[in-house]
Amino acid sequence: MSMRRFSLNQWTTKRWSVAEAIDGCVRHGVEAIGLWRQDVARQGLEQSAKLVRDAGLRVSSLCRGGFLTSGSPESLDDNRRAIDEAAALEAACLVMVVGGLPGVVPDEPLGGPGQGVDRDLAGARERVAEALAVLAPYAAERGVRLALEPLHPMYCADRAVLSTLGQALDLAEPYPAGQVGVVVDTFHVWWDPQVFDQIARAGDRIASYQVCDFLHPLPANVLLGRGVMGDGVIDFAPLTEAVTAAGYTGDIEVEIFNADVWAADPDEVLARVKARFGELVAR
Amino acid sequence: MSMRRFSLNQWTTKRWSVAEAIDGCVRHGVEAIGLWRQDVARQGLEQSAKLVRDAGLRVSSLCRGGFLTSGSPESLDDNRRAIDEAAALEAACLVMVVGGLPGVVPDEPLGGPGQGVDRDLAGARERVAEALAVLAPYAAERGVRLALEPLHPMYCADRAVLSTLGQALDLAEPYPAGQVGVVVDTFHVWWDPQVFDQIARAGDRIASYQVCDFLHPLPANVLLGRGVMGDGVIDFAPLTEAVTAAGYTGDIEVEIFNADVWAADPDEVLARVKARFGELVAR
Repeated sequence: MSMRRFSLNQWTTKRWSVAEAIDGCVRHGVEAIGLWRQDVARQGLEQSAKLVRDAGLRVSSLCRGGFLTSGSPESLDDNRRAIDEAAALEAACLVMVVGGLPGVVPDEPLGGPGQGVDRDLAGARERVAEALAVLAPYAAERGVRLALEPLHPMYCADRAVLSTLGQALDLAEPYPAGQVGVVVDTFHVWWDPQVFDQIARAGDRIASYQVCDFLHPLPANVLLGRGVMGDGVIDFAPLTEAVTAAGYTGDIEVEIFNADVWAADPDEVLARVKARFGELVAR
Repeated sequence: MSMRRFSLNQWTTKRWSVAEAIDGCVRHGVEAIGLWRQDVARQGLEQSAKLVRDAGLRVSSLCRGGFLTSGSPESLDDNRRAIDEAAALEAACLVMVVGGLPGVVPDEPLGGPGQGVDRDLAGARERVAEALAVLAPYAAERGVRLALEPLHPMYCADRAVLSTLGQALDLAEPYPAGQVGVVVDTFHVWWDPQVFDQIARAGDRIASYQVCDFLHPLPANVLLGRGVMGDGVIDFAPLTEAVTAAGYTGDIEVEIFNADVWAADPDEVLARVKARFGELVAR
């Protein structure tokens, strides 16, 4: 596999603005980038779109839409805006992190028993399907592909009630593959006994392949348990082979949330993750 | 459901010795207890067996055998001893936590990249199946039922490559249900989109039903993310109904690993978990 498919997810070098990350990509010979909405908003949407175009970069994904489990009109509106932004950036997909149980806020403690948490997991999952029925046509009209991302089950309560690739494929099934795809992120799926069957089943539904390692032990904030490839427990070769065998030919994003990585010099980080990508993913 | 099915897993009141926990059960009108090998060894196996017999308690489980992924003869020997202990205690089952990737030690950092970790997850799972083929007949000869426990996927690397109830049932399938069963532990399975189908599939393979809540946010040591029922995000009613509909009539263990619970007075803890059990599980 070619190193040309390496894509820098912007939050791997979280200190960099959109402009700085684009410069970094150019400096390191990286052809693709995954952007985040918050950073795009700070840079300005039009300017971000111009910067990536001028640099000749592909936008492998825009992170992220989702958080649909409340069923609120506001969350649909926000997702329509995310779709518009993905269209403006000509992103290959809009990554959808569907949200956790209503009333559970990432990084915030729960109230007391019964206070404000909606524990109806099946209901939350149903609302995601309902929201998708509204958003998929809107995205299709704008040429944007939604990419449903199953998250590791340890994030089921607070970030994504979508917990396995199989479940994501069930959810995507009513829609054409070009309209609703799925994300295969090694961190989230490596443990799944069904992952190879489900990657094969996914076929051309794979809209994004993201790589990073699963650290042991997990840090105090489990969101930051994503490590540079080789620093954790994941065997990348069989997963990459499976995604390739399924027909995926797109960019491969390195997306690392990690306090030490974020504290390091972004140029050093980019050089390091490129090297590890070469050893463990592109080999 | 009757409160008589409430069982105290000894590690919910971790400071109590076997003798103290048995006394506590008698004092609180609890009829069943789940024991741990380490504590039984400290009390003495014969004395532990005598104490539970004299108190008229049922031993709902012995925790735990397993850690079979290294494929070492020593691990098989240790499991034979665990089976003998379960027989001596007349435990309803021996809980099997199958172990993580070889070279990954719970609570200890990994070495550097490539140092000592065997990342072959499929191979580790295969060795569990091979060890089970040795141990299941040994257990059956001694009248001990093995109970395969799928652990939450966040423990896949260090504690159990058995990550879903479906996977546990696949592993158990070659054996009679009375010989190799499965554990349904709410903490480990609540997120699984297939959990209700798999509980129904399990039927009389359910050897143990364990309850505790899933806390949010998780504590720094994710092993201790187990909360008193009602303190976390799990909806117990549908899981309990499914286990009941599957035909399970055995004891229901409350098993909570939690620094605050362990720091509290064990009598207060037992009273509290009994009350919550009445409200959320036995109702």
